[in-house]
Amino acid sequence: YKIESELRRSILINAIVSLIGFFVTVTMIPVASKYVLRRNLFGYDINKKGTPQGSVKVPESLGIIVGAVFLVVAILFQYFNFTADSNWLVEYNAALSSICFMMLLGFVDDVLDVPWRVKLLLPSIAALPLLMAYAGHTTIIIPKPLVSYVGLEILDLGCIYKLYMWLLAIFCTNSINIHAGINGLEVGQTVVIAAAILIHNIMQIGASADPEYKLAHAFSIYLVQPMLATSLALLSYNWYPSSVFVGDTFTYFAGMTMAVAGILGHFSETLLIFFLPQVLNFLLSVPQLAGIVPCPRHRLPKFDPQTGLLTGTNDGTLVNLFLRQLGRMSEQSLCVTLLVFQSAVVACYLQRLFLNHKNSDTF
Amino acid sequence: YKIESELRRSILINAIVSLIGFFVTVTMIPVASKYVLRRNLFGYDINKKGTPQGSVKVPESLGIIVGAVFLVVAILFQYFNFTADSNWLVEYNAALSSICFMMLLGFVDDVLDVPWRVKLLLPSIAALPLLMAYAGHTTIIIPKPLVSYVGLEILDLGCIYKLYMWLLAIFCTNSINIHAGINGLEVGQTVVIAAAILIHNIMQIGASADPEYKLAHAFSIYLVQPMLATSLALLSYNWYPSSVFVGDTFTYFAGMTMAVAGILGHFSETLLIFFLPQVLNFLLSVPQLAGIVPCPRHRLPKFDPQTGLLTGTNDGTLVNLFLRQLGRMSEQSLCVTLLVFQSAVVACYLQRLFLNHKNSDTF
Ligand SMILES: [Mg+2]
Ligand SMILES: [Mg+2]
Repeated sequence: YKIESELRRSILINAIVSLIGFFVTVTMIPVASKYVLRRNLFGYDINKKGTPQGSVKVPESLGIIVGAVFLVVAILFQYFNFTADSNWLVEYNAALSSICFMMLLGFVDDVLDVPWRVKLLLPSIAALPLLMAYAGHTTIIIPKPLVSYVGLEILDLGCIYKLYMWLLAIFCTNSINIHAGINGLEVGQTVVIAAAILIHNIMQIGASADPEYKLAHAFSIYLVQPMLATSLALLSYNWYPSSVFVGDTFTYFAGMTMAVAGILGHFSETLLIFFLPQVLNFLLSVPQLAGIVPCPRHRLPKFDPQTGLLTGTNDGTLVNLFLRQLGRMSEQSLCVTLLVFQSAVVACYLQRLFLNHKNSDTF
Repeated sequence: YKIESELRRSILINAIVSLIGFFVTVTMIPVASKYVLRRNLFGYDINKKGTPQGSVKVPESLGIIVGAVFLVVAILFQYFNFTADSNWLVEYNAALSSICFMMLLGFVDDVLDVPWRVKLLLPSIAALPLLMAYAGHTTIIIPKPLVSYVGLEILDLGCIYKLYMWLLAIFCTNSINIHAGINGLEVGQTVVIAAAILIHNIMQIGASADPEYKLAHAFSIYLVQPMLATSLALLSYNWYPSSVFVGDTFTYFAGMTMAVAGILGHFSETLLIFFLPQVLNFLLSVPQLAGIVPCPRHRLPKFDPQTGLLTGTNDGTLVNLFLRQLGRMSEQSLCVTLLVFQSAVVACYLQRLFLNHKNSDTF
């Protein structure tokens, strides 16, 4: 794959500032943990209840550090982006507004414990800056397998496209937030999807000859790369056994950032494929979220302090489905299994894409 | 004064959405107060210590509601602004990013109690989106009385202008935050300054013939009008005796919004004149902030529960200076006196400006 030198330079600079962001995040999380604990922002690890670890106060909402460092990195990066034109800046700043607003609402939710039905609405407010400033095209590319059914390859949706963007942002943000509950899963899935988005962007930049198309994918890189770097820093603390929790601040921030990248990078259909496990988890959750089946406060597996294993409950989540199908598992194995599943999904798609590119090269 | 019909229409629509914002804020503050109290985000009213009111838990950080409503109003308003060009949108979205980021950091500070020397640095981070996206001219108009000393009427500063913008944003934000401590003062000063900015903008739009100049002042109106409306809603709860406190969330939000309006509206010199009492308070505070004179946690007057009057201490604040000069006073009279002083300053300036306009009309 060949990337123009200017674009490569911008991406490299972005990688460097992201790396700095990684180290800043690693340094700041322990400091912030003390402040968070002092304010009684902590949680007990429910999946360790009955063991000594279950009575440790784990600091909550450390996503705020990830988010703040991300914002600083993303803002400072604007200074280095040489391909800047005014339209790019509008969308970039609108993206930052949406992400920052989402982070604010997430942190407010962590601190004040908004009722969960209201919670589902928060992303719809935070996505507004993006919708307002969106100046891109309003067409979607129908995925290949569906072309024969729809009869079109590209569908121009006009105003409905904005509605689609809105729903996508709401969906991505909430779906990361509800695919959670075991150590490392929130950040782990974010890292897997973000890595997939990055690889996809680089492949597309390499395969395409259209400069605007390249720029759209570069745009996504500029947002996803710093998010990946800062999330990895958080993962080092949040991995089993978690010494910090991430809070809705993180899940909202991560979900909105990926949604924004997908929308402004014009690959929202691919994004939905990367989100397949989250889509599955959402579909499993629908009966409980809609109130058809009673919904407890936490829809977590049952922990047995004797064996240290988790047993699936009947709550409609992917976590429980995996436990019911694969049998009892330790928390760590379960998280690894779920992340392997997510990785398998994205790897399948990326491989098919790679083969497609290769085939079209030979013609 | 004559305003073009399109601009007048935009301003009118902004006024209407601001009014809706006012009612939403009034409705939401009591609801949010309960959530805030549940999370132990409250303060005791130090200036009522020793009376029954001094032991009431007053909910803190209600600025978050004002800020969130402001953001929604300001975002939705973009939809109605018909004079939109791309450059306008960049700056508007950068402004929203800066304001939202400042609000986030302010709320984090309220929740986690950042050490106060770190606190002074937070606005310098939040002002970054604005600096990065700023595309306007880099000249300042030397105030009339100084022209003879400097020898120039307009000074082009180039890169130094961005530094100036940065320092202005940091100053405005912190100076509102440290001119505080008695019921209603934080919101009261904001309301007075915001009203002054609005009047100034309308006068300038009326007096000028340059469409770009008009647009810059309209830009400021679009930000300040919703802020004024939502702040008034907060004032109705924060006025003596306060049933809610505003938190650094509010002071940071208000300070940054006015700084942004001044910078992007290109009247930062006038803004500094409106901030004269805050400048005075800052100068009085310098010895303590710099650590030359020891600085207590709160630099408040002394309250006498018997008489209900406040006595000035030797701490370097305008509040204490007024009490030392004018003698003991009740908290409410003190707040009114300080706000009258602020109003007198802005009224003087606006009147001079009005007379200037009138004189130039006759020529
Ligand atoms: Mg959550
Ligand atoms: Mg304060």
